[in-house]
Amino acid sequence: MKVYGDSMSGNCLKVRYTADYLGLDYQWIDIDILNGECRTPDYLAKNPAGQVPMLELGNGRTLAQSNAIMEFLAEGSVLLPADTYDRAKVNEWLFWEQYSHEPYIAVCRFDMVYRGKPREQREGWRVERGEAALDLMESWLGDRDWFVGKTITIADVALVAYTRLAEEGGFDISGRVRVAQWIGRCEHELAISV
Amino acid sequence: MKVYGDSMSGNCLKVRYTADYLGLDYQWIDIDILNGECRTPDYLAKNPAGQVPMLELGNGRTLAQSNAIMEFLAEGSVLLPADTYDRAKVNEWLFWEQYSHEPYIAVCRFDMVYRGKPREQREGWRVERGEAALDLMESWLGDRDWFVGKTITIADVALVAYTRLAEEGGFDISGRVRVAQWIGRCEHELAISV
Repeated sequence: MKVYGDSMSGNCLKVRYTADYLGLDYQWIDIDILNGECRTPDYLAKNPAGQVPMLELGNGRTLAQSNAIMEFLAEGSVLLPADTYDRAKVNEWLFWEQYSHEPYIAVCRFDMVYRGKPREQREGWRVERGEAALDLMESWLGDRDWFVGKTITIADVALVAYTRLAEEGGFDISGRVRVAQWIGRCEHELAISV
Repeated sequence: MKVYGDSMSGNCLKVRYTADYLGLDYQWIDIDILNGECRTPDYLAKNPAGQVPMLELGNGRTLAQSNAIMEFLAEGSVLLPADTYDRAKVNEWLFWEQYSHEPYIAVCRFDMVYRGKPREQREGWRVERGEAALDLMESWLGDRDWFVGKTITIADVALVAYTRLAEEGGFDISGRVRVAQWIGRCEHELAISV
């Protein structure tokens, strides 16, 4: 199978982390999003939303949306709980990540890293919601090692992808001790090198 | 089980449509979001994100995020394909809906319906992305009756919840024939009365 992605994008790295952790065989195809490589007719035929990451399976079937791809790859593995309620809690965090975390933390980082915008020119409402997202994570973690259950799941993979890069978006992690420790735990478990 | 929701919220109606379609037994508890009823300490203890809808199961377990709740309720039913790839495509649309549809169409509707903002004062960038989302749906539907496979799934339920209300957010549906027909198909199948 092929993964189309941008190695600087947290959404794309989620797929890489998941596939690597599970020892899956895949070919990574670099897509330069700033150069419009996911807006070509060929790409749009495979993914009408024109986004990365995208998974292409052997028989021409494709799949988009980082969290949907992770869940597909993790089906039946240790990264996705078999228990229906635990699986639902994983989904809860996946949807929360895409609605209440990524649009703030990842977009602020995009503005600073891809567009070269200074920290003080980030959009105020996005900063506020990003801070709230990090606060919620700090509070939820409490004495927990992982977001759902007793082992790492794709909920952690989804959340860590941009949380570990939040400082590139002007957010402070060091003041959130539990988040900082959990990031270290994830990086160790997923063998992420900086 | 209990569903905490606001009957004017498409996200909450998703849960009602799903539970009713599957004939599930539940108690609906009305939450007045404008009056802060989902920001009370009791509510936040059950759902730290302070949002509706929320599902409360008999044993005190709770679940948030509309699409996660729908998927939990639909597990093993006709609304969620058993085939792993088809299920992944359902997930793809669920994540797309929360990232590329709801923040534009539902938020414009919220501004107009809840906040009384005139159509011409909607945020331009949200209008633009909402229009693009409807265009993508029109194009995807083509000759399809449903978003994934040959029967209705929670992908349709998730997408129709706010699409059928899009005109309340200032969007034109009548010019999108396939979307309009699909809305009718969903309303008939889900027995939604206006």
